[in-house]
Amino acid sequence: MLDRLNHVAIAVPDLNAAVALYAGTLGAIVSEPMPLAEHGVTVVFIELPNTKIELLEPLGDASPIAGFLEKHPSGGIHHICYEVADILQARDKLRADGMRVLGDGEPRTGAHGKPVLFLHPKDFQGTLIELEQV
Amino acid sequence: MLDRLNHVAIAVPDLNAAVALYAGTLGAIVSEPMPLAEHGVTVVFIELPNTKIELLEPLGDASPIAGFLEKHPSGGIHHICYEVADILQARDKLRADGMRVLGDGEPRTGAHGKPVLFLHPKDFQGTLIELEQV
Repeated sequence: MLDRLNHVAIAVPDLNAAVALYAGTLGAIVSEPMPLAEHGVTVVFIELPNTKIELLEPLGDASPIAGFLEKHPSGGIHHICYEVADILQARDKLRADGMRVLGDGEPRTGAHGKPVLFLHPKDFQGTLIELEQV
Repeated sequence: MLDRLNHVAIAVPDLNAAVALYAGTLGAIVSEPMPLAEHGVTVVFIELPNTKIELLEPLGDASPIAGFLEKHPSGGIHHICYEVADILQARDKLRADGMRVLGDGEPRTGAHGKPVLFLHPKDFQGTLIELEQV
């Protein structure tokens, strides 16, 4: 089921400060900030040779990462996204094995314009997993 | 400075349960458990097409992940490891920029037999970063 690691997402309280750190001190290739109002985040992509890191800053009043940043005010690793070939097949297999899919279980369109689902961290050793059909 | 994402490490309280989940439910390619007494962990590698995930379970009385699991009893994402071409050059640049390198700042031999350093999570938005010279 699991294919490539699509990205690791890091929630940050101050995107400009994080960009300065990754582009400057860490010498990484960093995209322009991209506000995604419908996802409640502004995102910056850090391009690595084999995958990418996404820095997420809350956007708007109902950001899905607001609660995480309340618990971790300095920021932290928020989730890992794996690619899957068929997200509905993956969902059905996970549910058959007793795993919880977040929300209503219907894939929504993720930040890359592709179908995504999130899995309950309590079922995966405290790790919030995103699945993306590529 | 940052090159490939070498791995993402997830601390788990029960490696056998985690292996069953990743190999079975998530259909991933999972290695045999490898006890690394000198690192205080037993590690399992999850091989993805572009990188790997490492599942870490405490080993012995002074495991470096024991404190993390006390705070996160179900487990969680512990650190991200990036490859660098020259770890001493990376260390000196980071220190010159005011970043804290953990321990005495001398690279030690990591779980893959290569020189590694860890950076202070408070300097990197709550993310524990490992650098590995490959």
